[in-house]
Amino acid sequence: MRPNKLRQIWADGGAVINGWLGIPSTFSAETMAHQAWDSLTVDMQHGINDYTSLVPMLTAISTTDVMPLVRVPWLEPGIIMKSLDAGAYGVICPMVSNQDEAERLVSYCRYPPKGNRSFGPARALLYAGADYWQHANDTVVPFAMIETAESLEKLDEIMAVEGLEAIYVGPADLSLAVGCKPGFDPTEKVVVEAIELICATAKKHGVIAGIHCGSTAYAKKMIDIGYQFITLLGDARLMAMKSQEMLSEMRESVSAGGGSSTY
Amino acid sequence: MRPNKLRQIWADGGAVINGWLGIPSTFSAETMAHQAWDSLTVDMQHGINDYTSLVPMLTAISTTDVMPLVRVPWLEPGIIMKSLDAGAYGVICPMVSNQDEAERLVSYCRYPPKGNRSFGPARALLYAGADYWQHANDTVVPFAMIETAESLEKLDEIMAVEGLEAIYVGPADLSLAVGCKPGFDPTEKVVVEAIELICATAKKHGVIAGIHCGSTAYAKKMIDIGYQFITLLGDARLMAMKSQEMLSEMRESVSAGGGSSTY
Amino acid sequence: MRPNKLRQIWADGGAVINGWLGIPSTFSAETMAHQAWDSLTVDMQHGINDYTSLVPMLTAISTTDVMPLVRVPWLEPGIIMKSLDAGAYGVICPMVSNQDEAERLVSYCRYPPKGNRSFGPARALLYAGADYWQHANDTVVPFAMIETAESLEKLDEIMAVEGLEAIYVGPADLSLAVGCKPGFDPTEKVVVEAIELICATAKKHGVIAGIHCGSTAYAKKMIDIGYQFITLLGDARLMAMKSQEMLSEMRESVSAGGGSSTY
Amino acid sequence: MRPNKLRQIWADGGAVINGWLGIPSTFSAETMAHQAWDSLTVDMQHGINDYTSLVPMLTAISTTDVMPLVRVPWLEPGIIMKSLDAGAYGVICPMVSNQDEAERLVSYCRYPPKGNRSFGPARALLYAGADYWQHANDTVVPFAMIETAESLEKLDEIMAVEGLEAIYVGPADLSLAVGCKPGFDPTEKVVVEAIELICATAKKHGVIAGIHCGSTAYAKKMIDIGYQFITLLGDARLMAMKSQEMLSEMRESVSAGGGSSTY
Amino acid sequence: MRPNKLRQIWADGGAVINGWLGIPSTFSAETMAHQAWDSLTVDMQHGINDYTSLVPMLTAISTTDVMPLVRVPWLEPGIIMKSLDAGAYGVICPMVSNQDEAERLVSYCRYPPKGNRSFGPARALLYAGADYWQHANDTVVPFAMIETAESLEKLDEIMAVEGLEAIYVGPADLSLAVGCKPGFDPTEKVVVEAIELICATAKKHGVIAGIHCGSTAYAKKMIDIGYQFITLLGDARLMAMKSQEMLSEMRESVSAGGGSSTY
Amino acid sequence: MRPNKLRQIWADGGAVINGWLGIPSTFSAETMAHQAWDSLTVDMQHGINDYTSLVPMLTAISTTDVMPLVRVPWLEPGIIMKSLDAGAYGVICPMVSNQDEAERLVSYCRYPPKGNRSFGPARALLYAGADYWQHANDTVVPFAMIETAESLEKLDEIMAVEGLEAIYVGPADLSLAVGCKPGFDPTEKVVVEAIELICATAKKHGVIAGIHCGSTAYAKKMIDIGYQFITLLGDARLMAMKSQEMLSEMRESVSAGGGSSTY
Repeated sequence: MRPNKLRQIWADGGAVINGWLGIPSTFSAETMAHQAWDSLTVDMQHGINDYTSLVPMLTAISTTDVMPLVRVPWLEPGIIMKSLDAGAYGVICPMVSNQDEAERLVSYCRYPPKGNRSFGPARALLYAGADYWQHANDTVVPFAMIETAESLEKLDEIMAVEGLEAIYVGPADLSLAVGCKPGFDPTEKVVVEAIELICATAKKHGVIAGIHCGSTAYAKKMIDIGYQFITLLGDARLMAMKSQEMLSEMRESVSAGGGSSTY
Repeated sequence: MRPNKLRQIWADGGAVINGWLGIPSTFSAETMAHQAWDSLTVDMQHGINDYTSLVPMLTAISTTDVMPLVRVPWLEPGIIMKSLDAGAYGVICPMVSNQDEAERLVSYCRYPPKGNRSFGPARALLYAGADYWQHANDTVVPFAMIETAESLEKLDEIMAVEGLEAIYVGPADLSLAVGCKPGFDPTEKVVVEAIELICATAKKHGVIAGIHCGSTAYAKKMIDIGYQFITLLGDARLMAMKSQEMLSEMRESVSAGGGSSTY
Repeated sequence: MRPNKLRQIWADGGAVINGWLGIPSTFSAETMAHQAWDSLTVDMQHGINDYTSLVPMLTAISTTDVMPLVRVPWLEPGIIMKSLDAGAYGVICPMVSNQDEAERLVSYCRYPPKGNRSFGPARALLYAGADYWQHANDTVVPFAMIETAESLEKLDEIMAVEGLEAIYVGPADLSLAVGCKPGFDPTEKVVVEAIELICATAKKHGVIAGIHCGSTAYAKKMIDIGYQFITLLGDARLMAMKSQEMLSEMRESVSAGGGSSTY
Repeated sequence: MRPNKLRQIWADGGAVINGWLGIPSTFSAETMAHQAWDSLTVDMQHGINDYTSLVPMLTAISTTDVMPLVRVPWLEPGIIMKSLDAGAYGVICPMVSNQDEAERLVSYCRYPPKGNRSFGPARALLYAGADYWQHANDTVVPFAMIETAESLEKLDEIMAVEGLEAIYVGPADLSLAVGCKPGFDPTEKVVVEAIELICATAKKHGVIAGIHCGSTAYAKKMIDIGYQFITLLGDARLMAMKSQEMLSEMRESVSAGGGSSTY
Repeated sequence: MRPNKLRQIWADGGAVINGWLGIPSTFSAETMAHQAWDSLTVDMQHGINDYTSLVPMLTAISTTDVMPLVRVPWLEPGIIMKSLDAGAYGVICPMVSNQDEAERLVSYCRYPPKGNRSFGPARALLYAGADYWQHANDTVVPFAMIETAESLEKLDEIMAVEGLEAIYVGPADLSLAVGCKPGFDPTEKVVVEAIELICATAKKHGVIAGIHCGSTAYAKKMIDIGYQFITLLGDARLMAMKSQEMLSEMRESVSAGGGSSTY
Repeated sequence: MRPNKLRQIWADGGAVINGWLGIPSTFSAETMAHQAWDSLTVDMQHGINDYTSLVPMLTAISTTDVMPLVRVPWLEPGIIMKSLDAGAYGVICPMVSNQDEAERLVSYCRYPPKGNRSFGPARALLYAGADYWQHANDTVVPFAMIETAESLEKLDEIMAVEGLEAIYVGPADLSLAVGCKPGFDPTEKVVVEAIELICATAKKHGVIAGIHCGSTAYAKKMIDIGYQFITLLGDARLMAMKSQEMLSEMRESVSAGGGSSTY
């Protein structure tokens, strides 16, 4: 079976730099797969994707050796198992708040006797190899998102769940959970402390900690803290940011025309 | 009928800053339409679009007041007329090399007696208004691309064509046409002279000149020369450029993982 | 944030006339958005839509100021939150039968601390504006469908749920629930009484009452009773009805050919 | 091979009542196929269709015995032959202006030695039967659209073309061609005379005459004149018309809300 | 209402030979519908389908009299009811492990008072007929998949559920459930005994037993045991198998080129 | 630039075994790419593909090292150049009948000064590498289909065209061209002689000869004659053939049910 490069990077003590795909297109996915990302996550929660765009996008990523990951819309077994069958090597699941939810997440990602995943790895066989079944349980990585108020109170019970190998922080929801304004790269003390506590608890349990970042500066800080899975923005926002940079350069010197950037 | 803002910008002596859409997605199109572009061109020649993605993308642009343009794959009447019926306010046509081709382009964009466009503005009615028929001939702008060796010899005959209101330079093909390496923002003397000659000839004939640029610096130079329709890169490349910027910042300090950027 | 016109109509004591989209197409959606509907609902339960068609259809509606609503397939958090992130200003949820289900519906539509909606309003930002987060909880309207036998017994407990601002009657399911034949515009006494009771209970709790109608005559009666959100048929049926009208006119005088209308 | 019902209706002296599909959806196509149309035409010229929507829509029509026809975007061999391979039993081609164009149209629709159609009836085999090849030349009907100024002067040479079995009048383009306002159901004398002349010339040459109509009244008049293939509006417009009827009924009595119908 | 042919075959004591569709395409579905299958199942669990491909594929199957069935991704009410509204005549549901799950499955497939299915048979009306409502409860067949360890212990309680008319064995998951290697056509004693026990228990309860097979030899054995619903492989695998047969014949005699078959 | 494996096989004197894709699906394409084909051709002429399905299918093939080829619908520059930009390494063009058509085909596939291809290799850059421009003219292979009566008389003038590196025989059209029944693997003397003559003429001109075959037996014969590019059937037919084999085995022993195979 094709190995999961993320596990090697982590074993070496490194941090995975992950790209994020919200645009439902094989062409943008393949273009992103030719940048220097370690992994790319097709976002089916807040991105404009569902299963129909997921499969060709995972296929597009598979033209390279960038690792294919998925964020699912919710802790729902149907879509989690379909994502894995489509060849995802990791599943990021939103709003995992307690031990029961963490156990269900793991269970949907593992074949018996370790879990309840149903067998039928349609495209995964093509991507991973004919011995997928023997190694899938040890290759695929479930990520529980830590971002609700409840989860902050239950960090230990969540991270102690057998087979939960990684967690992922959504800073916007986490901010809301502690009464702050949602957004990237939070700096409010209460949020920063939560981010630090999550990472420390993860380390204690041997769980990999990941987080969504809005800038390289913040991302580097997170790596310094101990995060080993770092997402930098997403496809639509990268495109919008570069557009805004170039357009404001143009607009300074070009008087005519021009609207306003709202994204 | 909804007016074509490009005509106003040109009447005011300004330059249109045009964005470029190669990714076949309504979401990336709508995101781009919320940046400060004056117009957006759905590229069906070298972009990953055809009619199937064109219509919802024009619809997405229509949620804003950014002007919707189209580059067609070739001087073929079927797709040119379908693009206009879908609501495009301008048609950029590749490789127009002589008077006959320029006349055919104009003819496909104009209702009789000025041309041979067939009547049935399905979505254009919704976008432009019920009086589309009365004003379409004076609203829609045909752009002939000047980029072949033949066209360089026939600049005057092309630009003298009644109704050819704009031309557009494809620098990569133009470079190839004069024996240079294709690419953005050419600096070889022979190409630069061609670019200047095209603009001067256009001005002489009262034709608007446009050009595809790869940087704001080059774009500004082109505006200084007299170009009044400036495209800055395209969606996929903007996304790739910003990815590369951020990734190289990260890679300097993060040792583990990482591929290479090839786009 | 772009205001929700429905709230203004209701504040003025008016009734919203809502159109219904079952055909998965941006073109039919945009065509319907150019008729005089106050709002349009993309139906993902009994209509032929799911998330893949939903996003471009909401985009198509957004070319006008018709309010975009969604009926979700079921009380499932994944699709409800995805619909809101896609820019829906109201969510109609089938078969809400008791307080717990009504509370869950509200919770999926509200950011903390009022609910458990996850933050990431991808397309909603483009449609509604950059201040979406500040106003979304007060703008988006959750509609609980009242159509099961259980819900008829629990009208008060459902409508007393904090944040449940509207209910919606599905007359076909409601008829089945009370032992009658499913269909539009029911006239059986038991159904009519249920429809009246639901409206009266809603009024008592300050909840807006809506209902699906099959004719203008019935719709007007419902408005007289106090319903303030009225759906008139749907896209496919409107098309089929007009076809049948015209075809029967033709068939009276044209003998040859002709099949039978079964929709 | 499945027979072409149109030929039987014509042989019986009847008129075919044809429906028109501009919405790219299998569901609207299948719904229309359950009305009493004799045939349905997927419009790839002014409708929002291309090959990608064509095939599943022809499949949807094939769930009934309504005859599947296609209007192609232009006299281009690629798409004409692809439409036939997809199972179309008739091809309506825009703007056929002279003998040469009429001959090319026929040639693209006929296997050698009668024409130059390439062999490979992928889906047509499934729809029509394994003996497709033996009978296709005698089953499929090419329709040349008569709607340009040039064609009006060359009616005889066009209709004398061997194998051109039917013509089709586009009243909007025809109106433009003779200097009138484009639209349905023209009443200007010059247009009406052209419509009559076309029909009379067709009859003289044993060619079936068809026309696009906007009302049953006009359609009946056309049948009286001798037209034997009558299109009544199209899917989007039928839907819009019925919406407007119902909405204006509602708006008379409901004061609040409401936009304007522009389609 | 169009009758369900499966019920007739079973009433006659016969076995249904079912084909399996994992490729999301109307063309492959229609091609398969022209082979001699009794029924075809669109697989939305391990196949590459979801609702977006389901509807046009059910439409494609409906061009023939092959019975349309669906395997849903999970015991989730939204997608089960949507599949039925789309015209499925049977629903195969994965991993039904106990009485409660079996009852919920039945409930989602039956209109009140027999269940909780919501009324709105959009495409089902077109396929089945206007009297769908009267007969749907007696026509549609729910299949509970028996493939978990828990279900093996609760065969009687599952099969005793009122309205559960059929079960379906997934041999790969069943093998995993009893500690064996997943795969087609299992021969390990413990799996074979489970397969026999399931069939015997089904017979005892008057429930039809079905099973997924990988070869005609195994399929025949299963029919001998008493299984009356037999799936033979699936579209992608049939294509791959025939490719491999032909390619190995070619490769024996052709030395140049050639990769390796991994599916 | 990624080399074209076909050229190496031919240089070694071998024959390329080519698979054929008519089903518009990334999953069937990727499944086929995992069989032992040397190359796969996405058929946009008689297959159910156009540009919309082409790009993701070429992407799917690119997950392996199987060479991606395309058959275009016709000798039309728009789609030929779009196919190359999408990453095709060979273009098979139908019905090339004379020197002029052969020259145009070559011209559309070659950058200046060797031809008139327009520069903008969007996806080709990702697949082939950043040095695409330098090597594309020497990598991409144009195939002219020899299948019309005219082409048989002009074999020498066609094959003498500079840059026409390969021809491809369509046996069905070729049969029609010489007055025989269309079909795979023709045995009529006149067709067989034409097939032999074409191959011999190709060899004389240093042109590679290819042909579409329906069986391994015929394919081997063609290789013996000198053909070096052999297509074996196509995806849909392979699937149908294997279905028929298995179903007739089943039907022999299973009495109940069953339709008839017509593909």
